[in-house]
Amino acid sequence: MIKVAILGGSGYTALELVKLLLRHPEAEIAAVTSRHQETPLVEELHPSLARRIHLRCEPFDADRLVAAGVQCAFGCLPHGVSMTTLPALLERGVRVIDLSADYRLHDPNVYAQWYGESHQDLAHLAQAVYGLPEIYGDEIPTAQLVANPGCYPQTAILGLAPLAAGKHIDLHDLVVDSKSGVSGAGRTPKLTHHFPECNESVAAYSIGQHRHTPEIEQVLGDIAGESVSVVFSPHLIPMDRGILSTIYARARRAFSQEQLLELYRDYYGRAPFVRVVDHLPTTKESVGTNFCDITVRRVRDRVVIVACEDNLVRGASGVAVQNFNRMYGFDEKTALW
Amino acid sequence: MIKVAILGGSGYTALELVKLLLRHPEAEIAAVTSRHQETPLVEELHPSLARRIHLRCEPFDADRLVAAGVQCAFGCLPHGVSMTTLPALLERGVRVIDLSADYRLHDPNVYAQWYGESHQDLAHLAQAVYGLPEIYGDEIPTAQLVANPGCYPQTAILGLAPLAAGKHIDLHDLVVDSKSGVSGAGRTPKLTHHFPECNESVAAYSIGQHRHTPEIEQVLGDIAGESVSVVFSPHLIPMDRGILSTIYARARRAFSQEQLLELYRDYYGRAPFVRVVDHLPTTKESVGTNFCDITVRRVRDRVVIVACEDNLVRGASGVAVQNFNRMYGFDEKTALW
Amino acid sequence: MIKVAILGGSGYTALELVKLLLRHPEAEIAAVTSRHQETPLVEELHPSLARRIHLRCEPFDADRLVAAGVQCAFGCLPHGVSMTTLPALLERGVRVIDLSADYRLHDPNVYAQWYGESHQDLAHLAQAVYGLPEIYGDEIPTAQLVANPGCYPQTAILGLAPLAAGKHIDLHDLVVDSKSGVSGAGRTPKLTHHFPECNESVAAYSIGQHRHTPEIEQVLGDIAGESVSVVFSPHLIPMDRGILSTIYARARRAFSQEQLLELYRDYYGRAPFVRVVDHLPTTKESVGTNFCDITVRRVRDRVVIVACEDNLVRGASGVAVQNFNRMYGFDEKTALW
Amino acid sequence: MIKVAILGGSGYTALELVKLLLRHPEAEIAAVTSRHQETPLVEELHPSLARRIHLRCEPFDADRLVAAGVQCAFGCLPHGVSMTTLPALLERGVRVIDLSADYRLHDPNVYAQWYGESHQDLAHLAQAVYGLPEIYGDEIPTAQLVANPGCYPQTAILGLAPLAAGKHIDLHDLVVDSKSGVSGAGRTPKLTHHFPECNESVAAYSIGQHRHTPEIEQVLGDIAGESVSVVFSPHLIPMDRGILSTIYARARRAFSQEQLLELYRDYYGRAPFVRVVDHLPTTKESVGTNFCDITVRRVRDRVVIVACEDNLVRGASGVAVQNFNRMYGFDEKTALW
Repeated sequence: MIKVAILGGSGYTALELVKLLLRHPEAEIAAVTSRHQETPLVEELHPSLARRIHLRCEPFDADRLVAAGVQCAFGCLPHGVSMTTLPALLERGVRVIDLSADYRLHDPNVYAQWYGESHQDLAHLAQAVYGLPEIYGDEIPTAQLVANPGCYPQTAILGLAPLAAGKHIDLHDLVVDSKSGVSGAGRTPKLTHHFPECNESVAAYSIGQHRHTPEIEQVLGDIAGESVSVVFSPHLIPMDRGILSTIYARARRAFSQEQLLELYRDYYGRAPFVRVVDHLPTTKESVGTNFCDITVRRVRDRVVIVACEDNLVRGASGVAVQNFNRMYGFDEKTALW
Repeated sequence: MIKVAILGGSGYTALELVKLLLRHPEAEIAAVTSRHQETPLVEELHPSLARRIHLRCEPFDADRLVAAGVQCAFGCLPHGVSMTTLPALLERGVRVIDLSADYRLHDPNVYAQWYGESHQDLAHLAQAVYGLPEIYGDEIPTAQLVANPGCYPQTAILGLAPLAAGKHIDLHDLVVDSKSGVSGAGRTPKLTHHFPECNESVAAYSIGQHRHTPEIEQVLGDIAGESVSVVFSPHLIPMDRGILSTIYARARRAFSQEQLLELYRDYYGRAPFVRVVDHLPTTKESVGTNFCDITVRRVRDRVVIVACEDNLVRGASGVAVQNFNRMYGFDEKTALW
Repeated sequence: MIKVAILGGSGYTALELVKLLLRHPEAEIAAVTSRHQETPLVEELHPSLARRIHLRCEPFDADRLVAAGVQCAFGCLPHGVSMTTLPALLERGVRVIDLSADYRLHDPNVYAQWYGESHQDLAHLAQAVYGLPEIYGDEIPTAQLVANPGCYPQTAILGLAPLAAGKHIDLHDLVVDSKSGVSGAGRTPKLTHHFPECNESVAAYSIGQHRHTPEIEQVLGDIAGESVSVVFSPHLIPMDRGILSTIYARARRAFSQEQLLELYRDYYGRAPFVRVVDHLPTTKESVGTNFCDITVRRVRDRVVIVACEDNLVRGASGVAVQNFNRMYGFDEKTALW
Repeated sequence: MIKVAILGGSGYTALELVKLLLRHPEAEIAAVTSRHQETPLVEELHPSLARRIHLRCEPFDADRLVAAGVQCAFGCLPHGVSMTTLPALLERGVRVIDLSADYRLHDPNVYAQWYGESHQDLAHLAQAVYGLPEIYGDEIPTAQLVANPGCYPQTAILGLAPLAAGKHIDLHDLVVDSKSGVSGAGRTPKLTHHFPECNESVAAYSIGQHRHTPEIEQVLGDIAGESVSVVFSPHLIPMDRGILSTIYARARRAFSQEQLLELYRDYYGRAPFVRVVDHLPTTKESVGTNFCDITVRRVRDRVVIVACEDNLVRGASGVAVQNFNRMYGFDEKTALW
């Protein structure tokens, strides 16, 4: 039994983590921290957890967490806060799965450019493993610090990896048009996510400027072994959960429709959480699961890929548990099937 | 052409008023006031109005409004603010349709009890006419101050008026169970109306404690000529607009189903905006209109009434325009049909 | 390990059952039957189950199911079909949890009156146990045939049981106003449940005529030991899942608010799946769980109860698994926590 | 006053047409036809129209419509039915605005290829004017037959016209990723549009195979004076109305962000129903109006355009009324402002 802590308990990813970890036979939630002045019960923050967890939030205190036997921490803190909070745990030997963006980008200059502040923890940044198990699965078991991947990037990366790995596409002619449910925008109320504003409406946001862009480019670049550039356009649509990315690439060689599907099926043949499907998947088919559903189509001279996931499970807390399973040698599917 | 002002331009009722008044051949929006520090363009507050109205919000200044020729003001201010703002206009001879709750309750003690502060404008309170045209239609043409009715109360009052008028029901055994879209909660972001919190969810709120309770009781008491008490339970449901109230009463005499419908059809025979229907109406049938749709059913020893409306049109800005039409002698349906 | 069959695999309750049973360490889904001409894979009916279950639907054949070792069958057939299908299994010694309405009403005359056809299986009807574990929990372990309760009735019954058991309320002055998500209406497309018709809209339906009325009255009558009559009004609201019932009763004696909550907490002190809460619960808090969340309020001379549940889990498939657990002596919470 | 007929009264575009035409001071709805066996009242098909129109649907009969004085007919028939029904009216001198796809594609071979049947009315096809007023406005006043444009194509064409007209982009490197509300799929119930299936879900459909593709290519080809090819991917999102298209093009010359916006503002300087906006528009801003809202962004070497509209107003019935206004010399904005 591994004792775990959840750092930053008030948001949607923390809620989802609690639900998943309660089902995990080898994990015990020993602490939940919160930056609230008060120290509410977890069920006061999340009434759906009433009767399921009896724990009072506590302020973050690395010594106290270590004394309580915490071996692994899930970081649900905002970016910027993560990189100043987590070192205290890492230095004390605690393993960390960080759901923020702080340790995802290898190059601190790229971080500074997109996040508008310089990186505060270069030492650990250099050791962090990008926690996408289908790509970096071999590095995760021994990692002390796993940078859990972003929600959008997972669909883009998993959607393009089979083509990027074989350099089958022009890696500078990529469009990723993503549609996300509103939970992706977090739990802090603001006008644009006020129900009567965003219900019955769709909007693009941060076109060409979203911070997940360099994350997509870095990992696809790793996979392809050459530089990659992407035009990334996220949209908010009126639903709670789910991301669907429609990805447009240009093939460097002729593929038939069936060859494309075969390429994808082969590439993900041993990945339990990627389902390559023949039909055009809906987000509803993967909501509440850790699956990423992918299909691919030949359209004129383009390849069009559709990749779907639940943004809170596969896109955040589910893949975090998948990483946890790999880090501790449990069956990858534990608590996720 | 009547020059009008809208006081408090940033909310949903103001937006709806602008849309309706732009269609009114006899009204000209001469001013929109706002309590914002800045004085934004109306289309900056409400992008949907781009190209339709070119007006900059201004701070409230009674003299300036009078100088600009404003003859009638629509108050879209919060309760409490209305009763300290409107007197300056009323004293200068401007007619006012107040969409707040400040002038609806005749008895200042009842106001103090439900709104938690004492009334600040007893003089005008005494003269205010409750602006429900189907009930007080004769008093509206000569009123200087019309207290526009609440959204929920209109469904409860119109739903029960035919039975209350004839004293056909027990007036102390009334249950009003109302379901409202989220726009009824206003435009200020807060956690309970954050999209991922209230989407895909229903909740009751303020059961037995909602401030519309005394308003319903006062007007039904007027109609029946005796005291009335109501158990009122509002609910928020995941949609933008619309209210449906299901009302449970106990009949004092035996009615057949057909007699009940006939009673309602007779009572509203000359009311253009009340549609007595045979089927169970959906809110979608009246959304975007000034109609209140009503039907009535005999169930065991009870009478069950269903009354629907668009909470922003019929429930607020539409009935305000209907009152405006009556005040100035225009066809009641102008801009509303 | 108990081998189970699901009869009628194409609807939402069957889908939910599969998901729950896949998590059950002591159940194995040995067969899924379907009345389709074709015998599709289960994942063709429900793409969300891809990779999770590999089973082809088969026509119903009692001998074949017995030969395959099926010990327990979950009936997800329409009413009318259940009572002509299940006897073949019951006679072969298979235990059955029937999710249809066919075995819920003890009195075949009441069945005929509300369902419009005479009952075809009086023998088994007489032995059926109504599967509401919080009320009939002691009879379930030995039952061969459990009539799984209706979705609406559970909220009404659990919401009123503590007051009915003590005869604290007038049992002929009860109003149950229920709001349900659209999945409650089943998976067969029709105009009233076509997205652009029922989205952004609320409607009452079957007021006073819904078939769950006699079910509510029968069980509350059992609990109270006297006859009960209810005015029941269901409504469809634009969300996938969840039921919230607002229940209006008249107390026979004076209760304080706190006494009421205490009464409920005591009554459900040993029921793991009923959460008596202080706040007004939202359906979102129980969606995806087997909990029924209840609170109670004193309003003037009335008691108002709010009871919520997920209509597909607690309202159908979850309580079916809860019954399964009791029938076979497993921890009641298995696969449901 | 022009007497008009609506052919095919049961769908959403017919409903929207009735609402718009009831506000038109120069149009009188003289007849509504229906292919139903029964001849229901219009308000039986559309309860929201109760009290607003009193007309019984009638079977289509060209002579009878002419005898009733109908001068202009709006065709709301399915494709295939239009081209066999409308000739009878056209031959009798009635002017027609056809909302189906039958007269949009000039080349009958392209029609046959995408619609799977050969065209049945080549004579009128040759005379039809494509009813996009911002592009073919000069031809509409004298047209007898106007082929009202498709909903998706309008966003793609209006979104790309300023760039296509100046040949500023590569016309064979165009991606149109569109998101539509479910009303775009029509009013006939089917599983994919059943509320619990498509609510809380997004899906792409007909990627690369949607019939609006050749319509987009034809008109953009007209504008540019050279051939065009488009990759078009439509998606259904869980809302009633609204289309947002995100369009990706590659510029042939360097544009600054401001130059792009200026190009668009100039191009649409005299188009009352195209709003070029600086911000990223939401569909909610144009819902219920005849506006198409457009903005444009420079992203790396791409131009990204976002174009929004209400699919039933601007996308169908509103632009039909705009065409009607041009055909009869009324102010283009009549009934639409």
